[in-house]
Amino acid sequence: MTTSLTPWARERRRPRVVIVGGGFGGLYAARALKRDDVDVLLLDRTNHHLFQPLLYQVATATLAPTDITAPIRWLLRKQSNASVLMEEVARIDAERRVVATAEGHEYAYDYLIVAAGARHAYFNHPEWEALAPGLKSIDDAIELRRRILTAFERAEMIDDPEERAAWLTFIIVGGGPTGTELAGMLPTIARHALDHDFRRIDPKSARVILVEGGPRILATYPAELSEHARRDLTNLGVDVRTGTLVSEIGPHYVVAGTERIHAHTILWAAGNAASPLGRDLHAKLDRAGRVEVDPDLSVPGRREVFVIGDLAATTTDGKPVPGVAPAAMQMGALAAKNIRRDLEQRERVPFRYRNKGDLATIGRYRAIADFGRLRVTGGLAWWFWLFLHIMYLAGFRNRISVLVEWAYSYFTYERGARLITGRKMEPGREQPIPGKW
Amino acid sequence: MTTSLTPWARERRRPRVVIVGGGFGGLYAARALKRDDVDVLLLDRTNHHLFQPLLYQVATATLAPTDITAPIRWLLRKQSNASVLMEEVARIDAERRVVATAEGHEYAYDYLIVAAGARHAYFNHPEWEALAPGLKSIDDAIELRRRILTAFERAEMIDDPEERAAWLTFIIVGGGPTGTELAGMLPTIARHALDHDFRRIDPKSARVILVEGGPRILATYPAELSEHARRDLTNLGVDVRTGTLVSEIGPHYVVAGTERIHAHTILWAAGNAASPLGRDLHAKLDRAGRVEVDPDLSVPGRREVFVIGDLAATTTDGKPVPGVAPAAMQMGALAAKNIRRDLEQRERVPFRYRNKGDLATIGRYRAIADFGRLRVTGGLAWWFWLFLHIMYLAGFRNRISVLVEWAYSYFTYERGARLITGRKMEPGREQPIPGKW
Repeated sequence: MTTSLTPWARERRRPRVVIVGGGFGGLYAARALKRDDVDVLLLDRTNHHLFQPLLYQVATATLAPTDITAPIRWLLRKQSNASVLMEEVARIDAERRVVATAEGHEYAYDYLIVAAGARHAYFNHPEWEALAPGLKSIDDAIELRRRILTAFERAEMIDDPEERAAWLTFIIVGGGPTGTELAGMLPTIARHALDHDFRRIDPKSARVILVEGGPRILATYPAELSEHARRDLTNLGVDVRTGTLVSEIGPHYVVAGTERIHAHTILWAAGNAASPLGRDLHAKLDRAGRVEVDPDLSVPGRREVFVIGDLAATTTDGKPVPGVAPAAMQMGALAAKNIRRDLEQRERVPFRYRNKGDLATIGRYRAIADFGRLRVTGGLAWWFWLFLHIMYLAGFRNRISVLVEWAYSYFTYERGARLITGRKMEPGREQPIPGKW
Repeated sequence: MTTSLTPWARERRRPRVVIVGGGFGGLYAARALKRDDVDVLLLDRTNHHLFQPLLYQVATATLAPTDITAPIRWLLRKQSNASVLMEEVARIDAERRVVATAEGHEYAYDYLIVAAGARHAYFNHPEWEALAPGLKSIDDAIELRRRILTAFERAEMIDDPEERAAWLTFIIVGGGPTGTELAGMLPTIARHALDHDFRRIDPKSARVILVEGGPRILATYPAELSEHARRDLTNLGVDVRTGTLVSEIGPHYVVAGTERIHAHTILWAAGNAASPLGRDLHAKLDRAGRVEVDPDLSVPGRREVFVIGDLAATTTDGKPVPGVAPAAMQMGALAAKNIRRDLEQRERVPFRYRNKGDLATIGRYRAIADFGRLRVTGGLAWWFWLFLHIMYLAGFRNRISVLVEWAYSYFTYERGARLITGRKMEPGREQPIPGKW
């Protein structure tokens, strides 16, 4: 691939900050540089910022993809020192201080903020990806939605009781927040949204199995909250299997512990691997591939390169900072601040994660919330959750519209979101057929 | 492929009406049979009914796909004599009175209503499909949206002025309602929705060229209205070229008349071909592949088979019935009525198309309307159009929600709809890459 130095690089007058990734970290870093005398260039392979905490609601056909996305360039339209390009960064050349994109363009930087995030990881089983897709991007969510809705359609058309049961069995591998939230939503849509729509199957008979290798789900939460979440899930009819390792995933089955379960829909929520861009920085990586950054979030020995969000490994008070949206936003703001302090020739400040609380929803009206000393469960936690999410979403979309959409979707079980799009599956094949839809 | 006779066929007690296709014709036929002593089985390859008249608004990122779709089985959930299966009908065996699906299932019928519609057609140039996609399904609209939005993104990142101009050139082939509505919307989104979002390009500089082979656009409308539409388009900045044939479409160009135009985004709205299922009926087909039906909408010599909607060729007062939604709905209702009359041993009635008026929008606030003697243009026609469409949509979605979404989208140029999803294009290739997104 040929690379060309673009005028972006030649036209430079003031310091150029290149940001890789338009997720929570990258977007907040860009915004925090709003008033600074720098040129910001944000690169993302997609055109949109994604409100990832609600991705599972798109996967379960509760919200529409357009409800939780907004064009990055629109979000930054009023920030005259910021430009956005939809390009995938393929390589970082930290010696020459340029990033190279898959399109073959190169962009020089004075400061680089790498906020490239993580993908779901299959560890030593890359072949599982096609059989058990994960949930990171909006395209992932559309694919999961397609598989989940199609499973009910196929169950309806099939006679063989065993095959039908396999189409009505949903296995979720991994009991972290994503797996737990997916598992909580599936019985809810089967009971409410799909009720009355089928003639031969009872969607309520769907089996949802949540398989977790560790001793409890939501392992990063206090034990009492994870126990609470487990009870909530069990009450919804979810079969929660902790301490159960998945040793095999085949075209129509999962081996979980010693049992081979016949199922057509397997969803992966078991692991993340940081973006491979971290390797280009020649810094120390942790086991998940995250870059071990200095307290100021820069790469050791490369003060001009910051790594933030899910790609960064750092600690606060000796505890690892979790890969959650608030942490990414705080890191983005701090990286921006340290660039500003450099320009003002002041000393950099170290990163401290302020945990304002952890929240996870179970189904539609329950949640668990951990605000440090205050721990809340059930309906009250859910209202907390709803309020916080609407406040955030409202920041980048029309407030009234978000409220109306939410209310409409939540309280009427919106049907419009139950849309199957994308590539068609051939009967009996897990892999979608490329080509004609 | 093996086929199996399903219990759907074995369990029969009362007459079974199989309907192929859940568009306007098929859905209205099913609904019209609500109170009849028949079993209705509706087969569609998708899970959703699509409000096709607004498809161009999804393609131009004005509405979200979920705004104009609803699950067919949800629409028919309260009709206890109706079942819905998401299966693609591959073949009709009119002798044995069964339809066979791509899944290998067979469904026997006493009455068959074929409402399989049409696809866009490339006549003798099937290779043009990948270069100039058409607009019939929601997946088509998502693909067009991806290409249109990506074109602006690429223009922003490219230096070469000629290449950039080619990314900002949009060619629409075909001046019927779809082509006209697409052409009217493109300058509108470039001027309003995308304004302020780019740093290097001016979206307003986008060129939109509408190429029509015949002497005027909207040829089925009265000449004065098509002239009006042409003026409206020209005022919006669209380059309307009538009497201009497209002789060649290449990877980055179109030959229109004698000119070779360098453009990366070419949209096809030039022709339809009826579903190939018509051929299985061994009836006479017209040039577009439509089945020439008897006045009662049945296939000559096969009283138990009806063909309706875009797949049917019929006339009213000597004039061909157009392929529009109201005609399909009326045909659906009439086919159902004639089945009822058979069961009541009464004589069948012939189809008469009642044209309540034709409407086409130009951009966001203009339309042309033909109500026979009354012809309306401009803003008033647009309000007619808005009212009619909301009334219809309200029939299958929550009325308030539709109003809010519309108002929000129309008057604020909603950004959420500007979502690029789907397969990724490799730089310099028109064809999306199958496989990983």
